[in-house]
Amino acid sequence: MENLRVVEIKDIPSKEINIFGRLGKVRQPLPLLFNGSGVEIVVTGSDLWIDIETDSDFHEPWIAYELNGAFMSRQMMLPGEHSICLFRNMEPSTPKRVRFYRELQAMSEANRCKVLVKGFRLDGEFCEVPKYTRKLEFIGDSITSGEGSYGAVTDVDWLAMYMSASVNYATMTAKELKADYHIFSQGGWGVYCGWDNDVRHNIPSVYEKVCGLAFGDPVATELGTLEPYDFDSWQPDAIVVNLGTNDATSFNQPPLYIPEEDKTYKMRLNEDGSYNREDELKIVGAVENFLTMLRKHSPKAHIVWAYGMLGSDLNLAITEGINNYRSKSGDQNVSFFQLPNTTMETYGAHMHPGLKSHENATKELTHYLRVKLNWND
Amino acid sequence: MENLRVVEIKDIPSKEINIFGRLGKVRQPLPLLFNGSGVEIVVTGSDLWIDIETDSDFHEPWIAYELNGAFMSRQMMLPGEHSICLFRNMEPSTPKRVRFYRELQAMSEANRCKVLVKGFRLDGEFCEVPKYTRKLEFIGDSITSGEGSYGAVTDVDWLAMYMSASVNYATMTAKELKADYHIFSQGGWGVYCGWDNDVRHNIPSVYEKVCGLAFGDPVATELGTLEPYDFDSWQPDAIVVNLGTNDATSFNQPPLYIPEEDKTYKMRLNEDGSYNREDELKIVGAVENFLTMLRKHSPKAHIVWAYGMLGSDLNLAITEGINNYRSKSGDQNVSFFQLPNTTMETYGAHMHPGLKSHENATKELTHYLRVKLNWND
Amino acid sequence: MENLRVVEIKDIPSKEINIFGRLGKVRQPLPLLFNGSGVEIVVTGSDLWIDIETDSDFHEPWIAYELNGAFMSRQMMLPGEHSICLFRNMEPSTPKRVRFYRELQAMSEANRCKVLVKGFRLDGEFCEVPKYTRKLEFIGDSITSGEGSYGAVTDVDWLAMYMSASVNYATMTAKELKADYHIFSQGGWGVYCGWDNDVRHNIPSVYEKVCGLAFGDPVATELGTLEPYDFDSWQPDAIVVNLGTNDATSFNQPPLYIPEEDKTYKMRLNEDGSYNREDELKIVGAVENFLTMLRKHSPKAHIVWAYGMLGSDLNLAITEGINNYRSKSGDQNVSFFQLPNTTMETYGAHMHPGLKSHENATKELTHYLRVKLNWND
Amino acid sequence: MENLRVVEIKDIPSKEINIFGRLGKVRQPLPLLFNGSGVEIVVTGSDLWIDIETDSDFHEPWIAYELNGAFMSRQMMLPGEHSICLFRNMEPSTPKRVRFYRELQAMSEANRCKVLVKGFRLDGEFCEVPKYTRKLEFIGDSITSGEGSYGAVTDVDWLAMYMSASVNYATMTAKELKADYHIFSQGGWGVYCGWDNDVRHNIPSVYEKVCGLAFGDPVATELGTLEPYDFDSWQPDAIVVNLGTNDATSFNQPPLYIPEEDKTYKMRLNEDGSYNREDELKIVGAVENFLTMLRKHSPKAHIVWAYGMLGSDLNLAITEGINNYRSKSGDQNVSFFQLPNTTMETYGAHMHPGLKSHENATKELTHYLRVKLNWND
Repeated sequence: MENLRVVEIKDIPSKEINIFGRLGKVRQPLPLLFNGSGVEIVVTGSDLWIDIETDSDFHEPWIAYELNGAFMSRQMMLPGEHSICLFRNMEPSTPKRVRFYRELQAMSEANRCKVLVKGFRLDGEFCEVPKYTRKLEFIGDSITSGEGSYGAVTDVDWLAMYMSASVNYATMTAKELKADYHIFSQGGWGVYCGWDNDVRHNIPSVYEKVCGLAFGDPVATELGTLEPYDFDSWQPDAIVVNLGTNDATSFNQPPLYIPEEDKTYKMRLNEDGSYNREDELKIVGAVENFLTMLRKHSPKAHIVWAYGMLGSDLNLAITEGINNYRSKSGDQNVSFFQLPNTTMETYGAHMHPGLKSHENATKELTHYLRVKLNWND
Repeated sequence: MENLRVVEIKDIPSKEINIFGRLGKVRQPLPLLFNGSGVEIVVTGSDLWIDIETDSDFHEPWIAYELNGAFMSRQMMLPGEHSICLFRNMEPSTPKRVRFYRELQAMSEANRCKVLVKGFRLDGEFCEVPKYTRKLEFIGDSITSGEGSYGAVTDVDWLAMYMSASVNYATMTAKELKADYHIFSQGGWGVYCGWDNDVRHNIPSVYEKVCGLAFGDPVATELGTLEPYDFDSWQPDAIVVNLGTNDATSFNQPPLYIPEEDKTYKMRLNEDGSYNREDELKIVGAVENFLTMLRKHSPKAHIVWAYGMLGSDLNLAITEGINNYRSKSGDQNVSFFQLPNTTMETYGAHMHPGLKSHENATKELTHYLRVKLNWND
Repeated sequence: MENLRVVEIKDIPSKEINIFGRLGKVRQPLPLLFNGSGVEIVVTGSDLWIDIETDSDFHEPWIAYELNGAFMSRQMMLPGEHSICLFRNMEPSTPKRVRFYRELQAMSEANRCKVLVKGFRLDGEFCEVPKYTRKLEFIGDSITSGEGSYGAVTDVDWLAMYMSASVNYATMTAKELKADYHIFSQGGWGVYCGWDNDVRHNIPSVYEKVCGLAFGDPVATELGTLEPYDFDSWQPDAIVVNLGTNDATSFNQPPLYIPEEDKTYKMRLNEDGSYNREDELKIVGAVENFLTMLRKHSPKAHIVWAYGMLGSDLNLAITEGINNYRSKSGDQNVSFFQLPNTTMETYGAHMHPGLKSHENATKELTHYLRVKLNWND
Repeated sequence: MENLRVVEIKDIPSKEINIFGRLGKVRQPLPLLFNGSGVEIVVTGSDLWIDIETDSDFHEPWIAYELNGAFMSRQMMLPGEHSICLFRNMEPSTPKRVRFYRELQAMSEANRCKVLVKGFRLDGEFCEVPKYTRKLEFIGDSITSGEGSYGAVTDVDWLAMYMSASVNYATMTAKELKADYHIFSQGGWGVYCGWDNDVRHNIPSVYEKVCGLAFGDPVATELGTLEPYDFDSWQPDAIVVNLGTNDATSFNQPPLYIPEEDKTYKMRLNEDGSYNREDELKIVGAVENFLTMLRKHSPKAHIVWAYGMLGSDLNLAITEGINNYRSKSGDQNVSFFQLPNTTMETYGAHMHPGLKSHENATKELTHYLRVKLNWND
């Protein structure tokens, strides 16, 4: 490592680095705020290291990296400064493409959790990195956070190590379509409320901030995650919204009392097991409102609500919301697409989609986007 | 064949024969009106023949049969009386289960087309046939008629031989779920209009007759296909409606002039390629009305609109219709379920689903129905 | 059918017809002696019929046909003259490629069993048919006769309807490699003896006659099946020998008494369950001798012993025979290739390979032959 | 980590730890000499760490671990002492099963390369670990070292990071069969000579030492890898020998000059491309001799030569060696089994088997061993 020169992120020309994931104003060190957030470079030389700094409390971040498009490693990062060797002793003159990324979702209840990329150490040169002309944004819950994509079927703990961007339909779809992509997801959250009836856990309420999920100090202050996100800086060709699974679950969960409001929340079922219409309409309205918000920030993106990997119980409520939005706005550039359900054969850990389920979803969604966006290769 | 005794359909006790498919009042000879319509028996003896009578003009019917659940033969039937050997020289004492069925859909424009089962010839005995406690009804278009399920990818003629019940998600789903089933389908038709803007080609307009599709003489008169169907005679546990594919196509087809009405029909696209709202609402209304009709006749059935094997462009229009129905009726026992799309790898003949696509649909739909109906084996 | 003209096989120029399968001197009517034996033509016109004559006793022949490479029908043929419609009402100007073939193996114990093609009836013209520049010969037992490729897993009768050329690794491999092919196979037979220790049931003893399997009158006399086969008339690029499965089974079967010889035969096991060396050497010798015979008749063909679809117990005995042959002859153009075994998931009827097993074998064997023969497309 | 107690390997009762892989006399710290060598424990508690020491020069070792049978991480280990957190913050009372193992093969040309396990840190208790009653030994080359099981198809560097035990048919087969297992493999080596005609690179010459592959100081002295291996300490039920691929390659490689012997080695081809018989017999003899050696040390094991994942060119030479051994020894407890070849669809990095190929081999080999060893679950 002694013979390697250090290059900070800020000193790498933009044509020699691809950055994945939403960003605020901080660029040095570069914060990786979401799962899938990462850096991609092409370098010559025999050895390459990356310098990062991480912090965390209960939920430690995991990272992964790939070489020339192939998965090479994923590992747990405990708090501290780390120099990680990404490759060594390779043929020096051949350009190597490396992608390093965060596995763990933005953690809404882990104030200290962060991954910062400071720079690289290498004995070669940075080359121009192929640029992505296509852009996809994925908005979701635990499914899009890759929860259970690692782990045994019987594992039930709720831990960082089970989540990923590496075994994840969002990452796979973006790779398959050769697209840059953003992930904005949070396990347990919904479009109207969380799995446990917590109405604060809705994605729209945090979507307009850089990373509204990381709301606690010191990260929020330091990295500016609670500042408004500059949507103009990155306009997706398509937005994939995979929300609703937790809203559906809330109907079968006990009421939730929120002390700050001295109020109890509960999505109710009718006696015949169907959804209480009043409560269902809250979801319908939330879908409509979220589409309005998304359209405001991304005027040209195709917006597809892609739902169904853990059941499709909300198909009608979601489409009612979409149709209401469509009807009022006249906007035709929205659609609904059902993803294949997860079955006993395709579960990962704690009843979440495993690799095979993410592969199934990738196949269907990729085909859908290819046709819809006229991406013919 | 000389040593075999002849048994007419009417002389077989009902516990010794399963009849698949909708029926009118005629039982002898037994008309097989739809694809999938057929008979199933369990017999001992070494040899078994079936006596049938068929007629047709341009589109000849095809039939198929299976032995102990395994496909054995499919063949073209030209007009005439036929005695078909279903097996011979088998071990006499072992009971054999045989299902004989029509491959070709009800033909809406082929007056003479018919398949009548007169009876069996055998040297053994009829045994009790296992009865199906579950019932499924499938309503659809060319997809449910198995169009293109046989034939080369490059074949484009519109012919009877390319259609089937044997390679068909409806049949496969029913078998997988051990269910009796009805198919009511017609290639080219829709819920509001046909693929070519022909508004007469909508399934609801013929659904309430025994086989409203076979509207020409002599078959209609002889077999009573145009009489009202007695829905009480067979109440399904679930109705799968796979309609919309042709309605969607009509937007991209030229106007259709109907001389009898001196009127031209055309589903219109907006300049941006989206659906003209006025025309889209015709589909929305047709969906709503058809659901009302279905519910009237099948008060307890779960109704699932299962759509998407040839694109999902109408997802929003269909769900708008379902939601309107749901909202007005308060009926919660309806749902929308998207079937996996057909891709280059899964096409059969003339751009219709092939075997692999029907298998994919079967897998998803079977899982859906199993969960929804609580059919746990 | 009235408007069609009749064309006899003998009147079709050779460039307008492909004939599959071994032939003797008879060409009109054309005998289809083996499973896979058949005719292939390309015709214009709207309608096509084939005229055949069949005879049989216990084991009736089955036939199948495909249109433009896609399976269309298979059916049982009872004794008599038959005109079978292969297609009707098709777009007349488009050339249609049709292959009609025998499903049932040559029947060694069914004297009358035969399928004769007399000619075609059509309203179009014969076109030049694409010729195959590659030739494959398959020699085998029940596996290559497609036994159990149709039928339910539980079926155990030994009947013609369970055998096929349509669901058969030999046919699939030839199609995948775009090759003309011959099948020479017989269920229950081996390279040294049959499954039941019957030493008369060895393929080498009949291989040099046109169809030594059909040894009874009247077919033998009429069709010349017992005359020496003219190997020069058709020289394969590769010979695939799939024999040994029945030789292996014989060790576990009771002794067989042959009255004509007043002698009892039995392949013996040692006490530890291994093969008696003396008996094993009979197989070793039979392999060596058969290779010598094959090489004599096909000096340039690559000969691959491809074995293992129902267990690989004879791997060492077979390779010992091959190595002995190789060592003595100096011939290096022989090889051994193991085919994937059939498992519970891939069985067809009566514990024989089903469709999935034949597909697995096809995949491996196709890849092997492609590399070995340098067939790079 | 402060609250955890340290437990050395030597202090863990044998019923509370499973050790995978060959061992010499050193137990503390526990050397992991081969890929797949590792430790498995079941513990309660919230946190678990492992303490290891590694060293290396050019080829750094990689390690991987799994939790409750599911892959969790793999990472590069650079020289030094490492404490690796295997899990944290888990539900304390639930027993967790953890397997930690070496990814990198024994490195024959990397003197310093080693992985030593010193012990664990935990806040729970060791539980009894389920014991394996079945034992499998795998002997092989780069295939069994998992070379190319990681990495992009286009990667061609020969580096440690591309090898694994985690994506490896040996590991998968052992897991599928619930068996303890040993791997003894070396990339580039053969049964008679290496891929480059280096006759020193034959597995039999090093097989009888603990880890004859790690022949350089300081590791050899320190860990006793060059001492005779105590075969009585671990008797396998079956030995899978996957050798021959490099012997076959040597025929197509240039001659190799060995300075120490002042001699040049070359496996020769005949003009027609077949193997020079004299050279082929060297392989035949090496196979025979190696079987004799294996039998000497493992009197009761079933020995199967399982070969073919990168072509089957040596099928006849290998079986000739096996048959010679069988003939001379009378030993019938040996067999030959061909593994499925790797194709364009299943390659990993630098033309070696990828995940899909290892899965295919696992499926076939598992079925073979299950039947052969009568392991019926």
